Amino acid sequence: MKATEMKALIVSADMFEDSELLFPYYRLLEEKIETDIASIKTGTIIGKHGYKVIAALSLKQINPSSYDLVILPGGKAPSVLRRNEKLLALIRDFFEKGKAVAAICHGPQILVSAGVLSGRKATCYRNVAKELKDAGCHYSDQKVVVDGNLITSRIPADLPEFMREIMKKVKKEPD
Amino acid sequence: MKATEMKALIVSADMFEDSELLFPYYRLLEEKIETDIASIKTGTIIGKHGYKVIAALSLKQINPSSYDLVILPGGKAPSVLRRNEKLLALIRDFFEKGKAVAAICHGPQILVSAGVLSGRKATCYRNVAKELKDAGCHYSDQKVVVDGNLITSRIPADLPEFMREIMKKVKKEPD
Repeated sequence: MKATEMKALIVSADMFEDSELLFPYYRLLEEKIETDIASIKTGTIIGKHGYKVIAALSLKQINPSSYDLVILPGGKAPSVLRRNEKLLALIRDFFEKGKAVAAICHGPQILVSAGVLSGRKATCYRNVAKELKDAGCHYSDQKVVVDGNLITSRIPADLPEFMREIMKKVKKEPD
Repeated sequence: MKATEMKALIVSADMFEDSELLFPYYRLLEEKIETDIASIKTGTIIGKHGYKVIAALSLKQINPSSYDLVILPGGKAPSVLRRNEKLLALIRDFFEKGKAVAAICHGPQILVSAGVLSGRKATCYRNVAKELKDAGCHYSDQKVVVDGNLITSRIPADLPEFMREIMKKVKKEPD
Protein backbone atom coordinates (compact mmCIF):
# COMPACT_ATOMS: atom_id res chain seq x y z
CA MET A 1 0.00 0.00 0.00
CA LYS A 2 1.30 3.44 -0.93
CA ALA A 3 1.39 6.13 1.76
CA THR A 4 -1.21 8.12 -0.19
CA GLU A 5 -3.57 5.13 -0.06
CA MET A 6 -3.40 5.01 3.73
CA LYS A 7 -5.96 6.58 5.98
CA ALA A 8 -5.09 8.05 9.37
CA LEU A 9 -7.20 8.89 12.40
CA ILE A 10 -6.37 11.40 15.11
CA VAL A 11 -8.48 11.11 18.26
CA SER A 12 -8.59 13.96 20.74
CA ALA A 13 -10.89 16.24 22.74
CA ASP A 14 -10.91 19.67 24.41
CA MET A 15 -7.69 20.67 26.17
CA PHE A 16 -5.51 18.72 23.73
CA GLU A 17 -1.82 19.65 23.62
CA ASP A 18 -2.01 21.86 20.55
CA SER A 19 1.33 21.08 18.92
CA GLU A 20 0.89 17.34 19.50
CA LEU A 21 -2.28 17.40 17.42
CA LEU A 22 -1.36 20.06 14.84
CA PHE A 23 2.10 18.81 13.92
CA PRO A 24 1.03 15.21 13.15
CA TYR A 25 -2.11 16.49 11.37
CA TYR A 26 -0.26 18.94 9.11
CA ARG A 27 2.54 16.43 8.56
CA LEU A 28 0.16 13.71 7.34
CA LEU A 29 -1.61 16.21 5.07
CA GLU A 30 1.79 17.32 3.72
CA GLU A 31 2.28 13.67 2.74
CA LYS A 32 -1.20 13.69 1.11
CA ILE A 33 -2.47 11.09 3.56
CA GLU A 34 -6.20 11.32 4.18
CA THR A 35 -6.57 12.12 7.86
CA ASP A 36 -9.74 12.32 9.96
CA ILE A 37 -10.01 13.97 13.35
CA ALA A 38 -12.51 12.36 15.71
CA SER A 39 -13.69 13.26 19.19
CA ILE A 40 -16.39 12.24 21.64
CA LYS A 41 -18.85 14.24 19.59
CA THR A 42 -18.50 16.17 16.34
CA GLY A 43 -17.66 19.86 16.37
CA THR A 44 -14.89 22.22 17.39
CA ILE A 45 -12.41 21.11 20.02
CA ILE A 46 -10.08 23.62 21.68
CA GLY A 47 -6.48 23.04 22.69
CA LYS A 48 -4.73 24.12 25.88
CA HIS A 49 -3.11 26.95 23.91
CA GLY A 50 -6.35 28.01 22.24
CA TYR A 51 -6.02 26.43 18.80
CA LYS A 52 -9.36 25.27 17.43
CA VAL A 53 -9.74 22.12 15.35
CA ILE A 54 -12.90 20.61 13.89
CA ALA A 55 -13.64 17.01 14.79
CA ALA A 56 -15.62 15.98 11.73
CA LEU A 57 -16.47 12.59 13.21
CA SER A 58 -17.65 11.29 16.56
CA LEU A 59 -16.14 8.11 17.96
CA LYS A 60 -19.57 6.48 17.59
CA GLN A 61 -19.37 6.99 13.82
CA ILE A 62 -15.91 5.48 13.45
CA ASN A 63 -15.33 2.17 11.72
CA PRO A 64 -11.87 1.04 12.88
CA SER A 65 -11.34 -1.00 9.72
CA SER A 66 -11.33 2.22 7.67
CA TYR A 67 -8.01 3.30 9.19
CA ASP A 68 -4.39 2.15 9.01
CA LEU A 69 -2.95 4.42 11.70
CA VAL A 70 -4.29 6.09 14.84
CA ILE A 71 -2.58 8.97 16.66
CA LEU A 72 -3.37 9.95 20.25
CA PRO A 73 -2.09 13.45 21.16
CA GLY A 74 -1.61 14.47 24.79
CA GLY A 75 -2.77 17.31 26.99
CA LYS A 76 -5.78 16.85 29.24
CA ALA A 77 -7.89 15.22 26.51
CA PRO A 78 -6.72 11.63 27.19
CA SER A 79 -8.02 11.77 30.81
CA VAL A 80 -11.53 12.04 29.36
CA LEU A 81 -11.01 9.87 26.26
CA ARG A 82 -9.71 6.94 28.31
CA ARG A 83 -13.24 6.39 29.59
CA ASN A 84 -14.71 6.11 26.08
CA GLU A 85 -15.46 2.43 25.44
CA LYS A 86 -15.74 2.93 21.68
CA LEU A 87 -12.19 4.29 21.59
CA LEU A 88 -10.83 1.54 23.85
CA ALA A 89 -12.40 -1.08 21.55
CA LEU A 90 -10.82 0.63 18.53
CA ILE A 91 -7.40 0.57 20.19
CA ARG A 92 -7.73 -3.14 21.06
CA ASP A 93 -8.78 -3.85 17.47
CA PHE A 94 -5.70 -2.01 16.15
CA PHE A 95 -3.43 -4.02 18.45
CA GLU A 96 -5.06 -7.32 17.44
CA LYS A 97 -4.54 -6.51 13.77
CA GLY A 98 -1.02 -5.10 14.30
CA LYS A 99 -1.99 -1.70 12.87
CA ALA A 100 0.06 1.35 13.85
CA VAL A 101 -0.85 3.13 17.09
CA ALA A 102 1.05 6.29 18.06
CA ALA A 103 0.62 8.09 21.38
CA ILE A 104 2.48 11.01 22.95
CA CYS A 105 2.61 12.70 26.36
CA HIS A 106 -0.63 11.78 28.20
CA GLY A 107 -1.90 9.89 25.13
CA PRO A 108 -0.57 6.53 26.44
CA GLN A 109 -3.11 6.79 29.32
CA ILE A 110 -5.67 5.64 26.75
CA LEU A 111 -3.52 2.58 26.02
CA VAL A 112 -3.37 1.78 29.74
CA SER A 113 -7.17 1.87 29.94
CA ALA A 114 -7.41 -0.28 26.80
CA GLY A 115 -5.25 -2.88 28.54
CA VAL A 116 -2.83 -3.26 25.64
CA LEU A 117 0.49 -2.35 27.28
CA SER A 118 1.33 -5.46 29.31
CA GLY A 119 4.74 -6.70 28.23
CA ARG A 120 5.13 -3.91 25.67
CA LYS A 121 7.84 -1.24 25.47
CA ALA A 122 6.69 2.38 25.63
CA THR A 123 7.32 5.88 26.92
CA CYS A 124 5.05 8.78 27.98
CA TYR A 125 4.98 12.06 29.92
CA ARG A 126 6.95 11.55 33.13
CA ASN A 127 3.92 11.93 35.42
CA VAL A 128 2.24 9.06 33.59
CA ALA A 129 5.23 6.67 33.85
CA LYS A 130 4.03 4.98 37.06
CA GLU A 131 0.69 4.16 35.46
CA LEU A 132 2.45 2.50 32.55
CA LYS A 133 4.71 0.45 34.81
CA ASP A 134 1.72 -0.62 36.94
CA ALA A 135 0.08 -1.81 33.71
CA GLY A 136 3.03 -4.15 33.08
CA CYS A 137 4.64 -1.92 30.47
CA HIS A 138 8.43 -1.78 30.02
CA TYR A 139 8.72 2.00 30.35
CA SER A 140 11.82 3.91 29.31
CA ASP A 141 12.60 7.62 29.33
CA GLN A 142 13.45 8.13 25.64
CA LYS A 143 12.37 10.61 22.96
CA VAL A 144 10.61 7.84 21.08
CA VAL A 145 10.06 4.15 21.70
CA VAL A 146 9.03 1.85 18.85
CA ASP A 147 7.75 -1.63 19.73
CA GLY A 148 6.20 -3.31 16.73
CA ASN A 149 3.01 -1.45 15.84
CA LEU A 150 3.36 0.87 18.85
CA ILE A 151 5.10 4.28 18.73
CA THR A 152 5.25 6.47 21.85
CA SER A 153 6.89 9.75 22.86
CA ARG A 154 7.03 11.98 25.94
CA ILE A 155 6.63 15.71 25.18
CA PRO A 156 6.17 18.22 22.33
CA ALA A 157 9.96 18.56 21.91
CA ASP A 158 9.99 14.87 20.91
CA LEU A 159 7.67 15.52 17.95
CA PRO A 160 10.46 15.39 15.31
CA GLU A 161 11.47 11.87 16.40
CA PHE A 162 7.83 10.83 16.97
CA MET A 163 6.80 11.81 13.45
CA ARG A 164 9.99 10.38 11.94
CA GLU A 165 9.04 6.95 13.30
CA ILE A 166 5.38 7.34 12.33
CA MET A 167 6.40 8.21 8.77
CA LYS A 168 8.61 5.10 8.64
CA LYS A 169 5.53 3.00 9.43
CA VAL A 170 3.48 4.92 6.89
CA LYS A 171 6.13 4.42 4.22
CA LYS A 172 6.86 0.86 5.38
CA GLU A 173 10.54 1.64 5.86
CA PRO A 174 12.55 -0.72 8.07
CA ASP A 175 13.04 0.41 11.70
CA MET B 1 24.06 18.44 -1.42
CA LYS B 2 22.07 16.00 0.69
CA ALA B 3 19.18 17.35 2.77
CA THR B 4 21.07 16.40 5.93
CA GLU B 5 24.01 18.56 4.83
CA MET B 6 21.79 21.63 4.54
CA LYS B 7 21.46 24.23 7.24
CA ALA B 8 18.25 26.13 7.85
CA LEU B 9 17.50 29.37 9.68
CA ILE B 10 14.19 30.41 11.20
CA VAL B 11 13.94 34.10 12.09
CA SER B 12 11.23 35.30 14.42
CA ALA B 13 10.51 37.34 17.56
CA ASP B 14 7.94 37.64 20.35
CA MET B 15 4.31 37.22 19.30
CA PHE B 16 5.18 34.79 16.50
CA GLU B 17 2.34 32.64 15.16
CA ASP B 18 3.16 29.53 17.16
CA SER B 19 2.26 26.83 14.64
CA GLU B 20 4.02 28.68 11.81
CA LEU B 21 7.28 28.48 13.72
CA LEU B 22 6.87 25.10 15.44
CA PHE B 23 5.70 23.07 12.45
CA PRO B 24 8.59 24.06 10.13
CA TYR B 25 11.06 23.72 13.02
CA TYR B 26 9.95 20.23 14.03
CA ARG B 27 9.60 19.21 10.38
CA LEU B 28 13.18 20.18 9.54
CA LEU B 29 14.46 18.40 12.65
CA GLU B 30 12.45 15.32 11.65
CA GLU B 31 14.43 15.41 8.41
CA LYS B 32 17.67 15.73 10.45
CA ILE B 33 18.35 19.16 8.99
CA GLU B 34 20.38 21.39 11.29
CA THR B 35 18.13 24.35 12.08
CA ASP B 36 18.94 27.52 14.00
CA ILE B 37 16.40 29.92 15.43
CA ALA B 38 17.48 33.56 15.48
CA SER B 39 15.84 36.70 16.81
CA ILE B 40 16.73 40.33 17.47
CA LYS B 41 18.57 39.19 20.57
CA THR B 42 19.27 35.77 22.02
CA GLY B 43 16.93 34.24 24.57
CA THR B 44 13.38 33.00 24.89
CA ILE B 45 10.75 34.31 22.49
CA ILE B 46 7.05 33.77 23.18
CA GLY B 47 4.35 33.06 20.63
CA LYS B 48 0.83 34.50 20.44
CA HIS B 49 -0.47 31.23 21.88
CA GLY B 50 2.13 31.08 24.64
CA TYR B 51 4.64 28.59 23.23
CA LYS B 52 8.21 29.43 24.23
CA VAL B 53 11.16 28.88 21.91
CA ILE B 54 14.82 29.67 22.50
CA ALA B 55 16.52 31.89 19.96
CA ALA B 56 20.09 30.65 20.32
CA LEU B 57 21.43 33.34 17.99
CA SER B 58 20.91 37.06 17.53
CA LEU B 59 20.65 38.47 14.02
CA LYS B 60 23.93 40.32 14.65
CA GLN B 61 25.69 36.96 15.05
CA ILE B 62 24.32 35.46 11.84
CA ASN B 63 26.53 34.79 8.84
CA PRO B 64 24.11 34.45 5.89
CA SER B 65 26.53 32.23 3.99
CA SER B 66 26.15 29.54 6.66
CA TYR B 67 22.56 28.85 5.63
CA ASP B 68 20.81 27.33 2.62
CA LEU B 69 17.22 28.14 3.60
CA VAL B 70 15.52 30.84 5.66
CA ILE B 71 11.97 30.62 7.00
CA LEU B 72 9.96 33.64 8.17
CA PRO B 73 6.91 32.66 10.29
CA GLY B 74 4.02 35.09 10.75
CA GLY B 75 2.18 36.57 13.70
CA LYS B 76 3.12 40.02 14.98
CA ALA B 77 6.87 39.30 14.93
CA PRO B 78 7.42 40.43 11.29
CA SER B 79 6.15 43.97 12.06
CA VAL B 80 9.18 44.38 14.33
CA LEU B 81 11.64 42.27 12.33
CA ARG B 82 11.01 44.23 9.13
CA ARG B 83 12.90 47.15 10.67
CA ASN B 84 16.02 45.05 11.37
CA GLU B 85 18.64 46.04 8.79
CA LYS B 86 20.74 42.94 9.45
CA LEU B 87 17.78 40.74 8.54
CA LEU B 88 16.91 42.78 5.45
CA ALA B 89 20.52 42.48 4.25
CA LEU B 90 20.37 38.71 4.83
CA ILE B 91 17.17 38.44 2.78
CA ARG B 92 18.68 40.46 -0.09
CA ASP B 93 21.76 38.25 0.01
CA PHE B 94 19.60 35.11 -0.21
CA PHE B 95 17.74 36.52 -3.22
CA GLU B 96 20.99 37.51 -4.96
CA LYS B 97 22.35 34.00 -4.50
CA GLY B 98 19.03 32.30 -5.37
CA LYS B 99 18.85 30.54 -2.01
CA ALA B 100 15.47 29.41 -0.69
CA VAL B 101 13.37 31.96 1.21
CA ALA B 102 10.03 30.85 2.68
CA ALA B 103 7.55 33.23 4.33
CA ILE B 104 4.02 32.71 5.63
CA CYS B 105 1.17 34.92 6.85
CA HIS B 106 2.72 38.27 7.91
CA GLY B 107 6.23 36.94 7.15
CA PRO B 108 6.20 38.43 3.61
CA GLN B 109 6.11 41.93 5.20
CA ILE B 110 9.83 41.41 5.79
CA LEU B 111 10.29 40.72 2.07
CA VAL B 112 8.45 43.97 1.23
CA SER B 113 10.83 45.92 3.48
CA ALA B 114 13.82 44.13 1.94
CA GLY B 115 12.64 45.32 -1.48
CA VAL B 116 12.86 41.91 -3.10
CA LEU B 117 9.27 41.37 -4.29
CA SER B 118 9.04 43.60 -7.35
CA GLY B 119 7.98 41.44 -10.31
CA ARG B 120 7.85 38.30 -8.18
CA LYS B 121 4.89 36.00 -7.55
CA ALA B 122 3.83 35.57 -3.92
CA THR B 123 0.98 35.24 -1.44
CA CYS B 124 0.49 36.29 2.20
CA TYR B 125 -2.14 36.89 4.89
CA ARG B 126 -5.05 38.73 3.27
CA ASN B 127 -4.53 41.94 5.27
CA VAL B 128 -0.99 42.15 3.90
CA ALA B 129 -1.98 41.69 0.25
CA LYS B 130 -2.21 45.40 -0.54
CA GLU B 131 1.32 45.97 0.73
CA LEU B 132 2.62 43.24 -1.56
CA LYS B 133 0.80 44.65 -4.59
CA ASP B 134 2.08 48.16 -3.79
CA ALA B 135 5.59 46.68 -3.77
CA GLY B 136 5.12 45.47 -7.35
CA CYS B 137 4.47 41.86 -6.38
CA HIS B 138 2.14 39.63 -8.42
CA TYR B 139 -0.06 38.58 -5.50
CA SER B 140 -2.44 35.65 -5.68
CA ASP B 141 -4.75 34.13 -3.09
CA GLN B 142 -3.45 30.55 -3.08
CA LYS B 143 -2.39 28.10 -0.36
CA VAL B 144 1.19 28.26 -1.58
CA VAL B 145 2.98 30.18 -4.31
CA VAL B 146 6.40 29.05 -5.54
CA ASP B 147 8.43 31.48 -7.67
CA GLY B 148 11.99 30.27 -8.10
CA ASN B 149 13.71 30.50 -4.73
CA LEU B 150 10.64 32.07 -3.09
CA ILE B 151 7.91 30.08 -1.29
CA THR B 152 4.98 31.88 0.34
CA SER B 153 1.74 30.91 2.08
CA ARG B 154 -1.18 32.67 3.75
CA ILE B 155 -2.27 31.09 7.04
CA PRO B 156 -1.54 28.20 9.45
CA ALA B 157 -3.98 25.92 7.57
CA ASP B 158 -1.66 26.24 4.54
CA LEU B 159 1.26 24.71 6.47
CA PRO B 160 0.98 21.26 4.84
CA GLU B 161 1.38 22.76 1.35
CA PHE B 162 3.98 25.30 2.55
CA MET B 163 6.20 22.61 4.03
CA ARG B 164 5.62 20.26 1.07
CA GLU B 165 7.12 22.91 -1.23
CA ILE B 166 9.93 23.75 1.20
CA MET B 167 10.86 20.07 1.43
CA LYS B 168 10.96 19.86 -2.39
CA LYS B 169 13.58 22.65 -2.38
CA VAL B 170 15.47 20.95 0.43
CA LYS B 171 15.46 17.64 -1.41
CA LYS B 172 16.03 19.33 -4.79
CA GLU B 173 12.93 17.73 -6.26
CA PRO B 174 11.48 19.29 -9.40
CA ASP B 175 8.56 21.73 -8.82
